[in-house]
Amino acid sequence: MKISEIARLLNGKLENFTQDKEIKNLKSVETATEDDITFLKNKKDLDKIKAGAVIVGSFIPELNIPQIVVDKPDIAFYKLIEIFYPDEKKEGFISDLAVIGKNVEIGKSSQIHEYVVIKDNVKIGNNCIIHPFCYIGENTQIGDSCILYPNVVIYKDTIIGNNVIIHANSVIAADGFGYYQEDGKHKKIKHIGKVIIEDDVEIGANTTIDRAMLDETVIKKGTKIDNLVMIGHNCKVGQNTILVSQVGIAGSSKIGNNVILAGQVGVADHITIGDNVIVTAKSGVGSDLPPNGIYGSSINAIEWKKWKRVIAILPKLPEILKKLEK
Amino acid sequence: MKISEIARLLNGKLENFTQDKEIKNLKSVETATEDDITFLKNKKDLDKIKAGAVIVGSFIPELNIPQIVVDKPDIAFYKLIEIFYPDEKKEGFISDLAVIGKNVEIGKSSQIHEYVVIKDNVKIGNNCIIHPFCYIGENTQIGDSCILYPNVVIYKDTIIGNNVIIHANSVIAADGFGYYQEDGKHKKIKHIGKVIIEDDVEIGANTTIDRAMLDETVIKKGTKIDNLVMIGHNCKVGQNTILVSQVGIAGSSKIGNNVILAGQVGVADHITIGDNVIVTAKSGVGSDLPPNGIYGSSINAIEWKKWKRVIAILPKLPEILKKLEK
Amino acid sequence: MKISEIARLLNGKLENFTQDKEIKNLKSVETATEDDITFLKNKKDLDKIKAGAVIVGSFIPELNIPQIVVDKPDIAFYKLIEIFYPDEKKEGFISDLAVIGKNVEIGKSSQIHEYVVIKDNVKIGNNCIIHPFCYIGENTQIGDSCILYPNVVIYKDTIIGNNVIIHANSVIAADGFGYYQEDGKHKKIKHIGKVIIEDDVEIGANTTIDRAMLDETVIKKGTKIDNLVMIGHNCKVGQNTILVSQVGIAGSSKIGNNVILAGQVGVADHITIGDNVIVTAKSGVGSDLPPNGIYGSSINAIEWKKWKRVIAILPKLPEILKKLEK
Repeated sequence: MKISEIARLLNGKLENFTQDKEIKNLKSVETATEDDITFLKNKKDLDKIKAGAVIVGSFIPELNIPQIVVDKPDIAFYKLIEIFYPDEKKEGFISDLAVIGKNVEIGKSSQIHEYVVIKDNVKIGNNCIIHPFCYIGENTQIGDSCILYPNVVIYKDTIIGNNVIIHANSVIAADGFGYYQEDGKHKKIKHIGKVIIEDDVEIGANTTIDRAMLDETVIKKGTKIDNLVMIGHNCKVGQNTILVSQVGIAGSSKIGNNVILAGQVGVADHITIGDNVIVTAKSGVGSDLPPNGIYGSSINAIEWKKWKRVIAILPKLPEILKKLEK
Repeated sequence: MKISEIARLLNGKLENFTQDKEIKNLKSVETATEDDITFLKNKKDLDKIKAGAVIVGSFIPELNIPQIVVDKPDIAFYKLIEIFYPDEKKEGFISDLAVIGKNVEIGKSSQIHEYVVIKDNVKIGNNCIIHPFCYIGENTQIGDSCILYPNVVIYKDTIIGNNVIIHANSVIAADGFGYYQEDGKHKKIKHIGKVIIEDDVEIGANTTIDRAMLDETVIKKGTKIDNLVMIGHNCKVGQNTILVSQVGIAGSSKIGNNVILAGQVGVADHITIGDNVIVTAKSGVGSDLPPNGIYGSSINAIEWKKWKRVIAILPKLPEILKKLEK
Repeated sequence: MKISEIARLLNGKLENFTQDKEIKNLKSVETATEDDITFLKNKKDLDKIKAGAVIVGSFIPELNIPQIVVDKPDIAFYKLIEIFYPDEKKEGFISDLAVIGKNVEIGKSSQIHEYVVIKDNVKIGNNCIIHPFCYIGENTQIGDSCILYPNVVIYKDTIIGNNVIIHANSVIAADGFGYYQEDGKHKKIKHIGKVIIEDDVEIGANTTIDRAMLDETVIKKGTKIDNLVMIGHNCKVGQNTILVSQVGIAGSSKIGNNVILAGQVGVADHITIGDNVIVTAKSGVGSDLPPNGIYGSSINAIEWKKWKRVIAILPKLPEILKKLEK
């Protein structure tokens, strides 16, 4: 694609435009060379640029290569990726090697790959891709334009909206972790609830979202969930929320809209986190958090020799303070 | 089912019994409406009740709906779930699409679903359900009434008792993480040990339990393990113990009976934790814990602006204390 | 195998050699009995020994059983495991139940088991074992002598070197967790980068390594990764590095050579960790770490009653210090 065409598609202004070169690849600022285009988000990366062209937020006089000036260079670049590498046009098919139960409806142009197992009374919408080794339990509904990567397991009664992506080896609607005590033993509480995943949700690889005991575990519209995340039974996760990798949310907690839980955050059970809250990586949330704040309890690693002296003091703090008060 | 029949089955006393209504569903206190029955555990939920009937621990005069009074309303309700939603009667079968090795024994009434791979010398008991895409390695023994959900992988030589449930995508008896150093490289230690899982154990989704190097990794009777838990090689986990989601136990540690490790707890290698110990969520266990205590090192998230000031002080604590002593 | 033969194979010196017994098994110091051989690493285990023979670092007069004296008894023992339990000789085959795409090359003596799906333009080297239910995406290259355990999912364009082992249910090259904001929504950034895994890497079960956005996520030669580890998009992990279970590394971070990240460590995005660094279990790394140090921020669990008093004080530390300064 010629530089001029890229500029036109991105609605950008061309600067330093000496020659209408052919751009062959999109690369990062560190790796782009003369056949590539990149984007500049951070002026400290200026020296690194060896690209054939660059997308920038404002003209950079000291940079001697063709520049495409747009409002938001990063977003322009992300859109260019989709233009450069369009999704292959897909045609629908149902593999002979798929095992399809009774009373299953599959919409137009959907792909059911080899070695997929779909149980009875399942409904799958249009333009879906169900990759090999996916298992879709009874009475499950999946909307339009969903992608299930290989080995995704969906237990029965699950409801999934449109444009939902679930990455490989994730498990939706396994039994919640609930037991009662009897005769000194843990007896399993039968989980008859379900999981509802609304439109535009993306779920990473090896993530687990447990079914509710009685009602529903819900992931609302537009929420994005990373790899290896755990969401317990009965949780309600709001809209446009971000759950970064290895986050764990215990049962019956409610997470608001536009929340960000950074990597490895843990949330206790029956907690409510308000809208727009950010919790910093590795923090533990053991009580309700009102909306709109940033919260954390994480500690940055320092030299172990020093830190050992700190943690030797911590347990003694109450006694030290008592003495000081005297 | 009529209210009177439910009362009879639960051995409960009927109060406010004006009309013998038909109950159609079991719901939570928040969602139950007039065709549903629920249970009341907490009086603060009293205002929420719109159910057709309720199971309670003692008669509540201010509640104007039929009440079934029992000793433990929650447990009575859990038992009612099993009565209302009985497991479908299962008939045994071995799918033509399962691949079964040599010298495999499969007991009466067991279901071997499509696309299961069972290797040589495996023995599976009666009334088991092996869901699609499960892999059962050589010389593995599985007892009676076990359920393996889809995509469970069991490496060779594993021994599994009766009434064991393993949820989707969990991996039992993969090699432990053990290497020795030679020529500046990590050389793999061959793991010839095994995993033993005793009766009545339940294992969540995407959990991993590694095989021992020489002897056995053991999960004892009645222990319940949540999703995304890691149990390292050579560990011994006691009876009736609870390992909540994302717990990690490093190699060769011994966890007692009736222990609770809450979510995201980490246990170092070669640690012994005594019976009846509780470790609070997110805590790290780096030394042995005697029986019967509650231990923790977790910190609750607070406003980040405030917490940043705290963690700026922590590394300086030793010096601050020195000064103060002077 | 006779004791004398073991001594000869290990190049060890025989002591207390009264009778050339047959050794049948290799066992740990706790479980070995008279037909077994074990090794002694720690003199405190001396009383436990009931083995038929023992490998030691120097002759132990008070131990009245045949001893094989070698320089490094543990390493000698690990090598003996491989002699005692050699890998079965494998013959290559491609199962009729595998689904192989167009233009796929499979090397000599490689095993492609039942229910493997290999997409177009994949190249697999010699002596590989691809277990059931593995999915290998388009344009992927796998070197010689690799093992993929059941249910491993490799998304397209991945490059894997020689002698790589990937345990069950791990996911290589799923999309990175990257979105941009538009109209108050998270829009997916298309990930066109790839994952490169170099020679001699081992990856545990249920681990996820995400593809780069534009360039490459790289795991360098000889690095060993445990179960349930998360490696974000664009990360570069150096040579001979050890990532213990449940470690999470956020996007674009660089981990040096010979690094050890202990269990449950979290590393923020765009971090650089130098060569030979050790980070203690459960610590969080939020800023760059220079080479050769030991770092940590973990806290050991203590009695919860005491710890509760400590964490009640922590948030007040800044105010307490202010008062003290006055």
